[in-house]
Amino acid sequence: MHIPLVKDKENVMKRSDGRADEQLREVQFDVGFAPNAEGSVLISMGNTRVLCTASVEEGTPRWMQSEEKDGGWITAEYAMLPRSTGSRVRRERNGISGRSQEIQRLIGRSLRAAVNLELIGPRTITIDCDVIQADGGTRTASITGGYIALMLALGPELKSAAIPRSAIRQPVAAISAGVVQGRPVLDLCYEEDVAAEVDANFVCNGAGEIVEVQGTAEGETMTKADFDKLFAYAATGIEQLIEMQHSVLKREGISLS
Amino acid sequence: MHIPLVKDKENVMKRSDGRADEQLREVQFDVGFAPNAEGSVLISMGNTRVLCTASVEEGTPRWMQSEEKDGGWITAEYAMLPRSTGSRVRRERNGISGRSQEIQRLIGRSLRAAVNLELIGPRTITIDCDVIQADGGTRTASITGGYIALMLALGPELKSAAIPRSAIRQPVAAISAGVVQGRPVLDLCYEEDVAAEVDANFVCNGAGEIVEVQGTAEGETMTKADFDKLFAYAATGIEQLIEMQHSVLKREGISLS
Amino acid sequence: MHIPLVKDKENVMKRSDGRADEQLREVQFDVGFAPNAEGSVLISMGNTRVLCTASVEEGTPRWMQSEEKDGGWITAEYAMLPRSTGSRVRRERNGISGRSQEIQRLIGRSLRAAVNLELIGPRTITIDCDVIQADGGTRTASITGGYIALMLALGPELKSAAIPRSAIRQPVAAISAGVVQGRPVLDLCYEEDVAAEVDANFVCNGAGEIVEVQGTAEGETMTKADFDKLFAYAATGIEQLIEMQHSVLKREGISLS
Amino acid sequence: MHIPLVKDKENVMKRSDGRADEQLREVQFDVGFAPNAEGSVLISMGNTRVLCTASVEEGTPRWMQSEEKDGGWITAEYAMLPRSTGSRVRRERNGISGRSQEIQRLIGRSLRAAVNLELIGPRTITIDCDVIQADGGTRTASITGGYIALMLALGPELKSAAIPRSAIRQPVAAISAGVVQGRPVLDLCYEEDVAAEVDANFVCNGAGEIVEVQGTAEGETMTKADFDKLFAYAATGIEQLIEMQHSVLKREGISLS
Amino acid sequence: MHIPLVKDKENVMKRSDGRADEQLREVQFDVGFAPNAEGSVLISMGNTRVLCTASVEEGTPRWMQSEEKDGGWITAEYAMLPRSTGSRVRRERNGISGRSQEIQRLIGRSLRAAVNLELIGPRTITIDCDVIQADGGTRTASITGGYIALMLALGPELKSAAIPRSAIRQPVAAISAGVVQGRPVLDLCYEEDVAAEVDANFVCNGAGEIVEVQGTAEGETMTKADFDKLFAYAATGIEQLIEMQHSVLKREGISLS
Amino acid sequence: MHIPLVKDKENVMKRSDGRADEQLREVQFDVGFAPNAEGSVLISMGNTRVLCTASVEEGTPRWMQSEEKDGGWITAEYAMLPRSTGSRVRRERNGISGRSQEIQRLIGRSLRAAVNLELIGPRTITIDCDVIQADGGTRTASITGGYIALMLALGPELKSAAIPRSAIRQPVAAISAGVVQGRPVLDLCYEEDVAAEVDANFVCNGAGEIVEVQGTAEGETMTKADFDKLFAYAATGIEQLIEMQHSVLKREGISLS
Repeated sequence: MHIPLVKDKENVMKRSDGRADEQLREVQFDVGFAPNAEGSVLISMGNTRVLCTASVEEGTPRWMQSEEKDGGWITAEYAMLPRSTGSRVRRERNGISGRSQEIQRLIGRSLRAAVNLELIGPRTITIDCDVIQADGGTRTASITGGYIALMLALGPELKSAAIPRSAIRQPVAAISAGVVQGRPVLDLCYEEDVAAEVDANFVCNGAGEIVEVQGTAEGETMTKADFDKLFAYAATGIEQLIEMQHSVLKREGISLS
Repeated sequence: MHIPLVKDKENVMKRSDGRADEQLREVQFDVGFAPNAEGSVLISMGNTRVLCTASVEEGTPRWMQSEEKDGGWITAEYAMLPRSTGSRVRRERNGISGRSQEIQRLIGRSLRAAVNLELIGPRTITIDCDVIQADGGTRTASITGGYIALMLALGPELKSAAIPRSAIRQPVAAISAGVVQGRPVLDLCYEEDVAAEVDANFVCNGAGEIVEVQGTAEGETMTKADFDKLFAYAATGIEQLIEMQHSVLKREGISLS
Repeated sequence: MHIPLVKDKENVMKRSDGRADEQLREVQFDVGFAPNAEGSVLISMGNTRVLCTASVEEGTPRWMQSEEKDGGWITAEYAMLPRSTGSRVRRERNGISGRSQEIQRLIGRSLRAAVNLELIGPRTITIDCDVIQADGGTRTASITGGYIALMLALGPELKSAAIPRSAIRQPVAAISAGVVQGRPVLDLCYEEDVAAEVDANFVCNGAGEIVEVQGTAEGETMTKADFDKLFAYAATGIEQLIEMQHSVLKREGISLS
Repeated sequence: MHIPLVKDKENVMKRSDGRADEQLREVQFDVGFAPNAEGSVLISMGNTRVLCTASVEEGTPRWMQSEEKDGGWITAEYAMLPRSTGSRVRRERNGISGRSQEIQRLIGRSLRAAVNLELIGPRTITIDCDVIQADGGTRTASITGGYIALMLALGPELKSAAIPRSAIRQPVAAISAGVVQGRPVLDLCYEEDVAAEVDANFVCNGAGEIVEVQGTAEGETMTKADFDKLFAYAATGIEQLIEMQHSVLKREGISLS
Repeated sequence: MHIPLVKDKENVMKRSDGRADEQLREVQFDVGFAPNAEGSVLISMGNTRVLCTASVEEGTPRWMQSEEKDGGWITAEYAMLPRSTGSRVRRERNGISGRSQEIQRLIGRSLRAAVNLELIGPRTITIDCDVIQADGGTRTASITGGYIALMLALGPELKSAAIPRSAIRQPVAAISAGVVQGRPVLDLCYEEDVAAEVDANFVCNGAGEIVEVQGTAEGETMTKADFDKLFAYAATGIEQLIEMQHSVLKREGISLS
Repeated sequence: MHIPLVKDKENVMKRSDGRADEQLREVQFDVGFAPNAEGSVLISMGNTRVLCTASVEEGTPRWMQSEEKDGGWITAEYAMLPRSTGSRVRRERNGISGRSQEIQRLIGRSLRAAVNLELIGPRTITIDCDVIQADGGTRTASITGGYIALMLALGPELKSAAIPRSAIRQPVAAISAGVVQGRPVLDLCYEEDVAAEVDANFVCNGAGEIVEVQGTAEGETMTKADFDKLFAYAATGIEQLIEMQHSVLKREGISLS
């Protein structure tokens, strides 16, 4: 059953944390949080905090070798620390869950769109996203932070011209949007996420093009018009995130534009 | 890098199987293929064939009981037979793959949107989707066929009024669409799927509303305009599929409208 | 405790499906059911239906290489679809069950007896037997159908003389027999199988010789005379099955005698 | 290809260890080898040594409870110590092998035939068979020794009449037989087993009736006449083993006849 | 072979980071780093950083219930983030490693000595130790930090007298010591750990008594005199750590003495 | 809480089996119990019996090859037979337990101290320790017996000078000691082990030097003085064990001093 969007914004209650509907939570980047990694950042979006590291290893995965593919590969892993959440979650020690698999596959695909894999040489870059604190939007924070870790790891190679500047296509960032109590909002916190009728994640690049989009309306549905509204909010949010990525990387001496 | 859509349709080559861009493959429903199941259908969409069965079990999963949730549950499992594909694929005997997990979670979420779970009583319905032959679009065929198996299984309960008619919300069907060589097309076969720059799956209901949407542009991107075009194709395709579902179920004595 | 065989056939009830004691169920072969496989057949024996496919891969298993064995290898896998049975059975996704292992090892050994492995070159042929519908005798149907899938897969190689005709030894087929309510019968359906005091499976070749025999009397015993009677029934049944295999293969242009 | 049986015994070579064709290896029973078990015996048949223990636990397996079956249950586990063999075999620590599963299922079925499960009360008896030294025939030695361990464990209950004497049906023992270089022989050692064209295992009871029979002719076949000859040898061997079991148990104060 | 201890300290080189032999690295406690946990601290000992959280759950493990044990339980889990180390380590997703098991068992035993389990009521407290950065001594840092997380989690219960003050026995802390190039040193960094002939871990309480001691001389040996020297260093180090724990907890309003 | 040691020995009860505090249980070595192994011994320490075998394989583990380490490797595996204990313990078939891992890692490290790995050539020696009967001290019995199995396996190589005599460093043996009811005792049986406040295991070499030491005071603590007392007892016990090892090996023609 489709729940019609609320039209008259004046009469609706504010969001639980007082944000405007199309407003991002406060974003912070703590660069170099894991000094052993080639690139690392602790990204905070409100109370969601994810440690993103990029590890560069020589060589490519076996499947690329057997398919005789040139270039390199980017892959991702995602996990939640047991007390990232309000009640303790079990470690995935006897096989990874379906949810974690889905998320890490999404992160990997999204970040591969940022780079021309054929130009980075026979390297495998693993983006590890470990959720320190979870308050909604951990997968999109992983992508936005993962992009920074990736660029930090590639920085020295770009400076030394071991990898050509043309290997970097476009910045990539991601954000969630959803319909909560009939009202489209951007960057849902956990409380909103649980209550949402519709939940969507958008991954876009610096040109405003779509890299990935996933929308689900568990038990409900949404009209195309709802979806378009969510996309509009997300496009603006991602534009802001990409500007922040740009500043952070510039501060670290990596200028990609 | 965004590849602009081809504008002048006259000059482009036809699709490999001669279909128009917005044309579905031939669809067939072989009802009752697995007579032991409460509901079953072998759906064919071109050379893609999936056996969908619905199994009704009394009782609900443990997590529903511990959360003291009323009503019932619908879940799905998905697997490919080893020779559904051109070269043999291994059985997933030591843990399910990330791909299979993603697909079966999508099938489950999609079919739960067809039903008001609170009204079906303490039952668990499992939709098993086993791919006999794979030629692209196995997950969307699983959803379209799974809906029929589900309704066949619920049919006797609806007739006897053990489950109220209002428990059925809307029919649900699904289709893929993508951009192949810069050109949006509907219902991709495997050959097109492999070559596609953009690949999307749409799940809609009988009212044309979105249940699920997933779009990915591995290594590429798409504009919002591309995406809207794909959605338009998909909406028309799903409308046709829902009509066919309607006919098949009517033939089996199940009229839901 | 041994239950003596019923002597006076006149006075006993007919079998549940009206068959004579030594009578096979209706047998059908749907050749090419899985067109992607090198060889495939959907075998039906009454309500038991098994999809048998043969996959030919270049190269031999690692253990053959490390033992420096010449020739090729034939192996088998067996699984039941979740709704092949009256109530849903779980997929074996976290390790294969003892029962499935036993059955697929039996299928593999039986079919290796049909071929001189040293003459088929460094190839591995996998026979996949997936039970679509189970009504007793799935393992013997798998062997009988698996032989056809195997020969269909080898057919082109035999025609092109890539594999010599002498690589094919003898046709192989299998059937069950058992003692039900003190009375020996051939080709047990599920209802009979559950009630049987003694359950045996026979695999024989075209010369009437034994390839494999397995007899079990869970909780009961049988005399050697019982066993001999079961063997006699099975020998006749297998003879008929081998004739049918012969016809099917001839129709497909494969003449082995 | 069937290899005809050697007719003229005079002209053939003796067996590697000098035994006559129908002669058992030397059998020994070291009762109480594992004093913590309710019943235990280290059985030696030539150089094959298996430690068989019987453990009695109150209660029945969950599946019996949910099927509301009365009585008790007997099950078995089988494993080889790493250096029971000439070259070290790996422990089965990440899932049991198909071979071990087959064997332990055979042991369990065979020993259940010795007892009327409905009369032993709600008990689960586990027969553990751990191969200390392997020289062929470990599964049949496990059954023959397992029967003794089982009776030793039930002994006190029989004496106290907690379990009625009628719960014990018949003694059960087992032996291998095979065709080696065209010649049927009893109780194959490893060297003969490896060279055998035909390998069969027979489980019989004290009345000479068949409990289980398994015959395989990997890569070869056998005639019914071969099989009958093997059965005849086995029947004599098992008769001797049952006499020995009788003596051993009598010595331990358990008289069952 | 025993390598004699260096006697003349004047002539030996300083430690790689300039510390005296019996000197701890700089210790820091970042309390509340994981705000969702009942207790949390990020402990740093030099470049080793471990996030320790304490989770309190109602109820006790199943084994305690079946043994009808009163009181509560404390257990621990330990893991390294992939880029805690110089080169990426794999996540333990398909079973935990022997090393991790040993460490988390040690942490659990050590912290259980700090508390009288019978007096904390039917609660299970899980101490999660996730290594953010590894530079030697991660297991001892986990114990020292884990004690703080544990007390923070118990703090409110102690204040409200839901748990009596007498449930807390003694503070517990831990430190490593070893023999490097013939010279006993305290609190080894990774570089020293790799080069050490002898490696020992000491867990002591506030009374200077031993809770756990583990000493290993992989490929080498140590005299009892060596061991006594290591113990003396460790005792002093642990005394300092327990003072720091005391200050940190006092600052958080938890005074236990 | 530290329980003070009992001072006045006269007034305390004797140990449950009448031994003096510093007295070993009766020790026996049954050499060659597993004749297929390169070296084997069934060691008995009182009612604890462990079958130790040594298997020599050519080549080194993959990790040694990739680290380009010279010489050979010694590793160990440990398991308990199901009825080594009073009530049946499960086989570790779905992953090894933390306890078994800890023990087999300890056995491996201890025995590697007996040999100069660089001098034994590219060989891997696996020490398998299978507990036939468990009455406390199975890990220390495994080390003491494992040393004999190891030397028996190396014996022929030493005689033929394929491995130089200098490859053997020192004999290694192990024993437990603990504080039971406030009283330090040597070589705890199971009954004492369960009741012990403090439990320690000592591994020493022929020169009385420490190879490994592990002391734990689950729920309690011990003073350094307690620990020194336990060490003194253990040192005497190990001296006796090493003398026995010497005699056994000499009897087998292996003289190492």
